[in-house]
Amino acid sequence: MVAASVSLESLCVNSIRMLAVDAVNKSNSGHPGLPMGCAPMGYALWQNILNHNPNNPKWFNRDRFVLSAGHGCMLLYSLLHLTGYKSVSIDDIKEFRQWGSKTPGHPETFETEGVEVTAGPLGAGISNAVGLAIAETHLAAKFNKPDCKIVDHYTYVIMGDGCNQEGIASEACSLAGHLKLGKLIALYDDNQITIDGRTDVSFTEDVLKRYEAYGWHVQHVEDGNHDVKGITEAIEKAKLITDKPSIIKISTTIGYGSPNKSDTAGIHGAAVGEEEAALTREFLNWEYPPFEIPDEVYAHFRKSIDKGGSLEKEWDSKFEEYQSKYPSEGAELNRMLKGQLPENWDSDLPSYTPEDKGLATRKHSQICLGALGPNLPELIGGSADLTHSNYTDIKGESGSFQPHSPEKRYLHFGVREHAMAAVLNGIAYHNSGLIPYGGTFLVFADYMRGSMRLSALSELGVIYVLTHDSIGVGEDGPTHQPIETIPSLRAMPNMLVFRPGDGNETSGAYKLAIQNRKRPSALCLSRQGMPNQENTSIDKVALGGYVVSDCEGTPDLIFIGTGSELNLCIEASKEISSLGKKVRVVSMPCVELFEEQEDSYKESVLPSSVKKRVVVEAAHSFGWHKYTGFDGICITMDRFGASAPGGECMKNFGFTVENVVNKTKEIL
Amino acid sequence: MVAASVSLESLCVNSIRMLAVDAVNKSNSGHPGLPMGCAPMGYALWQNILNHNPNNPKWFNRDRFVLSAGHGCMLLYSLLHLTGYKSVSIDDIKEFRQWGSKTPGHPETFETEGVEVTAGPLGAGISNAVGLAIAETHLAAKFNKPDCKIVDHYTYVIMGDGCNQEGIASEACSLAGHLKLGKLIALYDDNQITIDGRTDVSFTEDVLKRYEAYGWHVQHVEDGNHDVKGITEAIEKAKLITDKPSIIKISTTIGYGSPNKSDTAGIHGAAVGEEEAALTREFLNWEYPPFEIPDEVYAHFRKSIDKGGSLEKEWDSKFEEYQSKYPSEGAELNRMLKGQLPENWDSDLPSYTPEDKGLATRKHSQICLGALGPNLPELIGGSADLTHSNYTDIKGESGSFQPHSPEKRYLHFGVREHAMAAVLNGIAYHNSGLIPYGGTFLVFADYMRGSMRLSALSELGVIYVLTHDSIGVGEDGPTHQPIETIPSLRAMPNMLVFRPGDGNETSGAYKLAIQNRKRPSALCLSRQGMPNQENTSIDKVALGGYVVSDCEGTPDLIFIGTGSELNLCIEASKEISSLGKKVRVVSMPCVELFEEQEDSYKESVLPSSVKKRVVVEAAHSFGWHKYTGFDGICITMDRFGASAPGGECMKNFGFTVENVVNKTKEIL
Repeated sequence: MVAASVSLESLCVNSIRMLAVDAVNKSNSGHPGLPMGCAPMGYALWQNILNHNPNNPKWFNRDRFVLSAGHGCMLLYSLLHLTGYKSVSIDDIKEFRQWGSKTPGHPETFETEGVEVTAGPLGAGISNAVGLAIAETHLAAKFNKPDCKIVDHYTYVIMGDGCNQEGIASEACSLAGHLKLGKLIALYDDNQITIDGRTDVSFTEDVLKRYEAYGWHVQHVEDGNHDVKGITEAIEKAKLITDKPSIIKISTTIGYGSPNKSDTAGIHGAAVGEEEAALTREFLNWEYPPFEIPDEVYAHFRKSIDKGGSLEKEWDSKFEEYQSKYPSEGAELNRMLKGQLPENWDSDLPSYTPEDKGLATRKHSQICLGALGPNLPELIGGSADLTHSNYTDIKGESGSFQPHSPEKRYLHFGVREHAMAAVLNGIAYHNSGLIPYGGTFLVFADYMRGSMRLSALSELGVIYVLTHDSIGVGEDGPTHQPIETIPSLRAMPNMLVFRPGDGNETSGAYKLAIQNRKRPSALCLSRQGMPNQENTSIDKVALGGYVVSDCEGTPDLIFIGTGSELNLCIEASKEISSLGKKVRVVSMPCVELFEEQEDSYKESVLPSSVKKRVVVEAAHSFGWHKYTGFDGICITMDRFGASAPGGECMKNFGFTVENVVNKTKEIL
Repeated sequence: MVAASVSLESLCVNSIRMLAVDAVNKSNSGHPGLPMGCAPMGYALWQNILNHNPNNPKWFNRDRFVLSAGHGCMLLYSLLHLTGYKSVSIDDIKEFRQWGSKTPGHPETFETEGVEVTAGPLGAGISNAVGLAIAETHLAAKFNKPDCKIVDHYTYVIMGDGCNQEGIASEACSLAGHLKLGKLIALYDDNQITIDGRTDVSFTEDVLKRYEAYGWHVQHVEDGNHDVKGITEAIEKAKLITDKPSIIKISTTIGYGSPNKSDTAGIHGAAVGEEEAALTREFLNWEYPPFEIPDEVYAHFRKSIDKGGSLEKEWDSKFEEYQSKYPSEGAELNRMLKGQLPENWDSDLPSYTPEDKGLATRKHSQICLGALGPNLPELIGGSADLTHSNYTDIKGESGSFQPHSPEKRYLHFGVREHAMAAVLNGIAYHNSGLIPYGGTFLVFADYMRGSMRLSALSELGVIYVLTHDSIGVGEDGPTHQPIETIPSLRAMPNMLVFRPGDGNETSGAYKLAIQNRKRPSALCLSRQGMPNQENTSIDKVALGGYVVSDCEGTPDLIFIGTGSELNLCIEASKEISSLGKKVRVVSMPCVELFEEQEDSYKESVLPSSVKKRVVVEAAHSFGWHKYTGFDGICITMDRFGASAPGGECMKNFGFTVENVVNKTKEIL
């Protein structure tokens, strides 16, 4: 029975709070402060606003919810559990942060159905949300008809002070304001506490004024600890603002309910303990033991199941109607939602012979995008303000995704690499078949590495178009010449790093990047031209490494080359062969894929008896010794580069046939 | 002779413009647009405002100037040349962007005297400037006396639209506003053009309003193409605002002077060509051939030499007076400016025996900071809002660098990793003996990698305190568990990556990090405890790798371990020894330093005849095959981690004595 003095609403809100207290206490690890402070906004949003279907977390037209302050994941797990998602049972909550549980320490899409984005690294979630909103806006513009809005949902975010300090969020929110993403609504949990204590030790800016400067609609709810009605009304108001994203600052008390620890950094990331839990129960008038939730709370929250079921059913009928009225668009959307690629999507990817003019692989990349674009309407992307250097435009298409033209698929990210990567992740998280790509200079992968890591971890098939891949960059000098960037990306699990050696391999890399919808790809592309080779192959890129030039019998020596240095290997091999040596050349456009081949194939390409191996790559040798062992050599770039014309850099740093031949002779 | 219609001021401004046009034309590479647009502000600042001494670019009390929009480096080279710096002759300008020249494609401190920070990666320069201003403010608060202001200079920046889009700049400028850095003055070249075209394709926020939200003083000069007087007055006004940093938006035309290419993206980063250069000469009324500067322009600009000489002389007398009046402070500042460490600075670094309680290396790190703090007043640093997780506080000290307490040396960076790294770089660039350090979780090195790279490239002895270095992080899960981070840092030239295996090695790592003033250090530190070992040594860390446990004669097997896995190696070695095998254990706290040892030493530690080698490290194996070759094995972590208690993660992923022994047996 509910005590007369406690409203059902309070009981629901306090259920969230106490699940956080008890789960964190049980695991003796976690962050109770945010869920306790944000319980009212979580309740208001999920119970009063959010269109979702607990019985089908993947229902396409659901509103998306992002907990950008991912450490507060017990808020999300509680809401998933209470509203009836099967992915989070009360037993799962009892297993919070334990090995193999569905309730890991930060929300992870690949562990828990209903989690829309993997969060924890601060600022990433709100930036993903910008991508989710871009996806919705684009698809709505593309597919909706005056009589049938088949794509129509909001994207909601809860973010904290930490998210608002991160540069990635600044970049993404500036972009969101520019793009007038009216269906993006962020709730800013302003609790004035971060790990180092009160925010006034480092963060005293006027956050809402900043968002106004970005072009957002701003509101403030003063009593976030209680005012569910005020929060609900603010969200309703934000929904009516269709030409601006909205932020609602909601002042809360971190750890609200804990008499001694609320409003302190102490409750941010540590269990409150048994004693304080008891005092919190008293303060909140909470009569139940750990993990017991009153039936009326479940009954109330789980109205979401019926509501969500009806919403989905309604949408299903609408989609049926849509498909019959607009069969071609309907079929396309249907295909995309199923994650199927169109037939013959890759039929226009070009192949080359040595007679074809050699080009920079960034130029080949542009040709690939032009070949894929018309066949792959789901391809969407752009560049972080380097369109005409990265060549990320799709030939034959003009215009870009702008407030007045959201049906366009070219994205001008501005000089915002980190936001770009997070937005690409967000588009992938939307899970509606869109294939996101984005370009910058390879060296600036460093600016967005945090989000590239999340692409890899969360299994998002984002395509990174990373041009200017070596000292071949030339005059821009060492700040712009990647040396260690390629090895640093190869060290990342689940990231496919391609460095194609000519036109065929660039086509092959694109083919694989498109096919791999669960793995991000980093396409490392040259600024400078290189010839097309005789035995390269679109299809063999899938093997990661393969023989492009060979001798009779067992080789005395194997060259392994990538990218612009493949040609060096081939030319050097001719000279070494002319000395009477048996030489093989292996092209290795993707080390990760080569590693995944069967041992017999790997042995056939790199026989273990052949220990004289020469790797040539204008990047740091780090990682290559796996193939050169103790007897091979790396002709690589183990220092920073220099400002000079690209050809001179290559020459002066030893990337000439002559030097490769000389160095190779030393081990013969 | 100057034509009557052309003022000396115009002639000076146009000298800058034409040097940019002609240098970029000659090299057929570079960015003429910014110098042409910013010539008036460059002239106003350098000629009317800046305190500097061309004859001594290193004069301590000079104003610092940062060209954050580093691609516009011809502006800086012209100003250095015209005002009389010997580092940039007219011949150097003719060699713009050529191999070995003093005028590389972006400003590089290590190439050109007078360049204060290496710039190019956008947003980094303005963020470095925040560090420069922090250094000045801190030293002024510490050393200045009511009768003697010995530290007293401004930090000026020219930044562009690109810088203002980058998140790193948002972070740093929010921090600067919080810290009320009144002597930081940024000139914002608002030319409305970036590489993708007009800024309105992606960047339509109200920049000055955003800066107001950060707590900055803002002004706008409307005619940046001509209004030298207005720019000068705005800077003078900004100097009077002592409790806020200042930004002056200066509206300019990119490529001003070029009749056909100004105000287009086409002049941003490409030569204008001969024909347009001629038209530009006509438009600007410029009568001189390429690289010829009228004598009266030189005469006027080079008044800086006398002025600067007098300023420095004046300061020298003041410093003499200061040293006699305040001998102890004077001696300390003098020592710092000479880059000397105090005697016995390392005398309190603790050493340990196995009897001492095992601790997490992050805890040892805190002890080291506490031991160094009192002896090294130049140590200054903090954490990106993880003070009590990184343990970056200096024991016995309270308070932090705040507007009311700039004499304090603890920095609360807020949740702003990238700005932290750039600020640390800025403090190092100040070149006044300060030793900057900063902490965050190792996994978030990804957020600041762009600036870590610049520490390495620009030879800045920044100390990165990177805790929670493996899956031992535990419950926070894979978003917080670095796997690939350590290898990715090891791939970076000039970065010392330490992963100490106990207390002695942590002390040793700190000793080296402090000593290395030209190389940044990344200290990778554990969350979890580990025992102190018998044969570890503070001094041997300098060898990078060394034997900690050995057998008689040539070993059958060598274990190589780092950090928390060193103990696993030692324990496993005991079991393998008990099987009658001869086993050596090598501790490898710093791969880079080991690589730099003489071959004979390396051979003595890792004899080439011993091919059975086992590396144990709870990180990705990438890079370790250099030591394991084809016959050794890596017991490493080649996938992302999982959320569970740290001990369980270690166990389930195979970091147990049992698993190490079993895996090792397989190769014996």
